[in-house]
Amino acid sequence: MRQVFHTVRVSTHGAGLYEFTGAAAKFAQAEKIGDGLLTCFIRHTSASLLVQENADPAVLKDLQDFFTQLAGKGMNFRHTAEGPDDMPSHIRSALTASSVAIPVRHGKPMLGTWQGLYVFEHRDAPHAREVVLHYIGD
Amino acid sequence: MRQVFHTVRVSTHGAGLYEFTGAAAKFAQAEKIGDGLLTCFIRHTSASLLVQENADPAVLKDLQDFFTQLAGKGMNFRHTAEGPDDMPSHIRSALTASSVAIPVRHGKPMLGTWQGLYVFEHRDAPHAREVVLHYIGD
Amino acid sequence: MRQVFHTVRVSTHGAGLYEFTGAAAKFAQAEKIGDGLLTCFIRHTSASLLVQENADPAVLKDLQDFFTQLAGKGMNFRHTAEGPDDMPSHIRSALTASSVAIPVRHGKPMLGTWQGLYVFEHRDAPHAREVVLHYIGD
Repeated sequence: MRQVFHTVRVSTHGAGLYEFTGAAAKFAQAEKIGDGLLTCFIRHTSASLLVQENADPAVLKDLQDFFTQLAGKGMNFRHTAEGPDDMPSHIRSALTASSVAIPVRHGKPMLGTWQGLYVFEHRDAPHAREVVLHYIGD
Repeated sequence: MRQVFHTVRVSTHGAGLYEFTGAAAKFAQAEKIGDGLLTCFIRHTSASLLVQENADPAVLKDLQDFFTQLAGKGMNFRHTAEGPDDMPSHIRSALTASSVAIPVRHGKPMLGTWQGLYVFEHRDAPHAREVVLHYIGD
Repeated sequence: MRQVFHTVRVSTHGAGLYEFTGAAAKFAQAEKIGDGLLTCFIRHTSASLLVQENADPAVLKDLQDFFTQLAGKGMNFRHTAEGPDDMPSHIRSALTASSVAIPVRHGKPMLGTWQGLYVFEHRDAPHAREVVLHYIGD
């Protein structure tokens, strides 16, 4: 049994979903990963992780719209230090995931046919996001 | 240290919560599992995972109603390829979990007294859902 | 490779966020933890886990307000066995997390600069909450 760490850096330019399935798969190949468990953890509280459909881009836009409406800039917040998109970002992060764990078989994360891994950026301004990958297995 | 994989198949017939706590416990027994970590991962984006109360069935109905109202069929979506329940399903999945990890002691997942493991089906039509179980431990 | 278990007990007195980052760090030090994976699991369905900003306390109040509005006591629920805050608690738990997994490097959980670990209490009355910590690694 062994473990490997890797940090994926995702440059974002506005709220929306940024896929990193390819970076995770590349990591698995490079490290000659076998059977095990892949954990993704995002080191931020105004961006989050999501496993979502990667077939129709309209899904990502509809998701974005829904979360924009659910936790929007027009609400009355105490915490507005970094602008009107600051607190909505924390809320949208709380409603989605900080970590996701995916079993890996023969070097491939066992994602379903239509599943992709995404950083869900909630801030308007460009950000450099870090997702830590941890693999443990054969 | 060793690891074991298992796929639980859950047949759903309409939106709602389907318990699989028993299947997870049976897997732990069959594999003579000791102390470790059990990870559940669902291979879909229109059904999700939930740890919820398994005492009063009314909880599950109230949960279902809440999510139906929060992300409903009446909203204006771009992605309607598979009908009006398609996009609400993706949203409800995003709001709940794709993976859940539970420590295991003496072969038993350390769930609280009232906790059960559920597949949260968001589609109306019957579906065959796959939950991958991964165990690592003694 | 080895693993360690620990239960963190958090006393809550009303709905809100209770930080346990310190308890997790102390556990890592006491057990001379190296590189690995730390999983937190909450054994309840009316309290949940959250990774959130621990710099400005206003963030926690705004979060609390948002969830109070989103799933409130005024809704019409079937399950009211333990009072009007019973079902809203289950819903708020479903919307946040039961488990969180964080990679650990040199004995330190790889949290971002502003990230803290929280128990998100959803009930009004005081409760004794249990969070199970599981570590696997070097």
